[in-house]
Amino acid sequence: MYDVHHIRQDFPILSRRIHDKPLVYLDNGASAQKPRIVIDAVTRGYAEEYANVHRGLHTLSSVATERYEAVRGTVARFLNAPSEEEIVFTSGTTEGINLVSYAWAAPRLQPGDEIVLTLLEHHANIVPWHFLRERQGVVLKWAECDAKGDLDPQSVIDAIGPRTKLIAVTHLSNVTGTVVDVKAITAGAHEKGVPVLVDGSQGAVHMPVDVQDIGCDFYAITGHKLYGPSGSGAIFIKRERMEEMRPFLGGGDMIREVTRDEVTYADPPMKFEAGTPGIVSTIGLGVALDYMMGLGMDNVSAHERTLRDYARDRVVGLNWLQIQGNSDGKAAIFSFTMEGAHAHDVSTVLDRRGIAVRAGTHCAMPLLQQFGVGATCRASFGLYNTVEEVDALVSGLELCRDLFG
Amino acid sequence: MYDVHHIRQDFPILSRRIHDKPLVYLDNGASAQKPRIVIDAVTRGYAEEYANVHRGLHTLSSVATERYEAVRGTVARFLNAPSEEEIVFTSGTTEGINLVSYAWAAPRLQPGDEIVLTLLEHHANIVPWHFLRERQGVVLKWAECDAKGDLDPQSVIDAIGPRTKLIAVTHLSNVTGTVVDVKAITAGAHEKGVPVLVDGSQGAVHMPVDVQDIGCDFYAITGHKLYGPSGSGAIFIKRERMEEMRPFLGGGDMIREVTRDEVTYADPPMKFEAGTPGIVSTIGLGVALDYMMGLGMDNVSAHERTLRDYARDRVVGLNWLQIQGNSDGKAAIFSFTMEGAHAHDVSTVLDRRGIAVRAGTHCAMPLLQQFGVGATCRASFGLYNTVEEVDALVSGLELCRDLFG
Repeated sequence: MYDVHHIRQDFPILSRRIHDKPLVYLDNGASAQKPRIVIDAVTRGYAEEYANVHRGLHTLSSVATERYEAVRGTVARFLNAPSEEEIVFTSGTTEGINLVSYAWAAPRLQPGDEIVLTLLEHHANIVPWHFLRERQGVVLKWAECDAKGDLDPQSVIDAIGPRTKLIAVTHLSNVTGTVVDVKAITAGAHEKGVPVLVDGSQGAVHMPVDVQDIGCDFYAITGHKLYGPSGSGAIFIKRERMEEMRPFLGGGDMIREVTRDEVTYADPPMKFEAGTPGIVSTIGLGVALDYMMGLGMDNVSAHERTLRDYARDRVVGLNWLQIQGNSDGKAAIFSFTMEGAHAHDVSTVLDRRGIAVRAGTHCAMPLLQQFGVGATCRASFGLYNTVEEVDALVSGLELCRDLFG
Repeated sequence: MYDVHHIRQDFPILSRRIHDKPLVYLDNGASAQKPRIVIDAVTRGYAEEYANVHRGLHTLSSVATERYEAVRGTVARFLNAPSEEEIVFTSGTTEGINLVSYAWAAPRLQPGDEIVLTLLEHHANIVPWHFLRERQGVVLKWAECDAKGDLDPQSVIDAIGPRTKLIAVTHLSNVTGTVVDVKAITAGAHEKGVPVLVDGSQGAVHMPVDVQDIGCDFYAITGHKLYGPSGSGAIFIKRERMEEMRPFLGGGDMIREVTRDEVTYADPPMKFEAGTPGIVSTIGLGVALDYMMGLGMDNVSAHERTLRDYARDRVVGLNWLQIQGNSDGKAAIFSFTMEGAHAHDVSTVLDRRGIAVRAGTHCAMPLLQQFGVGATCRASFGLYNTVEEVDALVSGLELCRDLFG
């Protein structure tokens, strides 16, 4: 039994008031709030058990190393990765995708080689590939989505040509909430011998993820959206792909031996983790993932579907509200514009009522260009949101309509 | 008046017992412990004021952005940088130096171009340059240090040839404690038109740093050694160098506009900060730097000199202990080997007495090769250590001598 009111008690910030109103936090797409158990793990990590990892034999270092390295297994379980050796810690999805771009793609791709993206991508899964276009003549090809925000997996597969070397696709759009059939895309791409990178920034937050079932080569996640600390993250990389990768960041921990004239590297995954990592943030990420697995990702997903359906019912027929993307199976993420009102003004009015939504281009300019909109507002729900909060949002929007309409 | 016993009260972990002995934490070179005020800032950052930065107009996002961006000014003050626009946030020194390697050096250096390093460097300031050697034929030249661990700044300047494009040098050796005259090196290098990168990982921890006085082009620091959170850091980059740099990590926040075919970038420093950063860790870094500036870096430095002198007096004449590096003006960092005892065994025995030292190669293999030693132990002191802890260390070493001698 998923008791959201009970779950909300786990999150200290949710009892805050903003402008003397209860906080209604609907900016989960940008970053999620943290349960007390995560905050406590961070506090304890610094106050009682702190030391650097991997490098010391003393007690504190051993304890920190043990807690830190245990998270690799937790991430592997969370993603159902075949082994924890295929998990690389990162500072978030951005670093994860850049790792693939710099360490796998850059040394392999030749001028004229192609990468297939989709219009649903976040800048984190666009700009690293633009770098390869600018720097080495790689060609970007774009699979379209339709007006509902749906993406036909076949359109991605059809975009593959003889020069295509990688598919880079989101699992779940941070603007429309569209869930992409990355399993079908991967199956089709692999038939043509093309590896697939999945941006799991949003996907892993809202549904169970099984990288073995998807079959993808790379799956990147970010801790701060997963109810974990900012600056934490991880990427699953298939062993065969890891073996094709050169190192990315150079420094301590990722080497085997360094001399004046030579350097040899540690085995993966350490080969891709240089220097002192975000030790305590990563320990916190492990606690956050355990928390989510404790709730059950199927339950989280079911709860958020209820919120989505309720929100859809509430806004259907509001002809002054334009929702960008209305895919049937979408997540509880609603981007919208309101006739006569700028998104920033709407967001500001909502904030005065304690409601936190984001306004802007959501790091997804190509998609907004496609929809023909500039800035939009976005209400993105998480595991602790309630139907009452949907009501608060709609009532806030009605106020905006009165003010600006 | 610098009251170390009072200061120790600020650090919760220092009251811990290890193996039923009071913790004597002498592994500050690897990572420093955190004062309560930093831990509280992190806790509050998550429990009361958390949201993503730069991207929201709602209250929590505004508060988080304000606190986060204020740290840029704090870092600028800490380093006496001319402006906070010349401060880029990183996840630590490793990322900072890799940023310079990938974004400034890689696109500029041609095969046969040279980078001058010194034997005192940490792998974080070696491996990124080895990448350029491996990948694009850059030549690494090494300035030597003498048996005491001293480095003649003129030897670095003399190593500059017509193909030299960069000097990369540490401010303070993490193995010997040697303080390098980076101001003299920079003056000489600039006369020959060669930029200078200073690895300030250790330097900024133990003495006041003034990047304008040094004159260097790049100065990288890491938060976790500065009594701040792990995963935080910053690098000072002179405006002229910033203008020569292409972006490094691609993603949100560092762009101006993204289309299917083009991308334009934000102005520095944002151009070099992609994606959601370690928000709360960076806020904690600001608190840590304010804490250090509150104590006064001159006072910290004076206190640590006292510890250094006292430790030197205690170990002089112990002919069974070999100290690597004995530079007159060194910091309170002592690497040592003991006849007949492996460093790991010494470290383990010390740990049983509550004393945390590091054993290994300290991410500085070329220097240890030069000294002709494999693993060593290292006792590295920080602002909260005491002369009584020096006594505890020496007494622990005497026990090791009895056990292994």
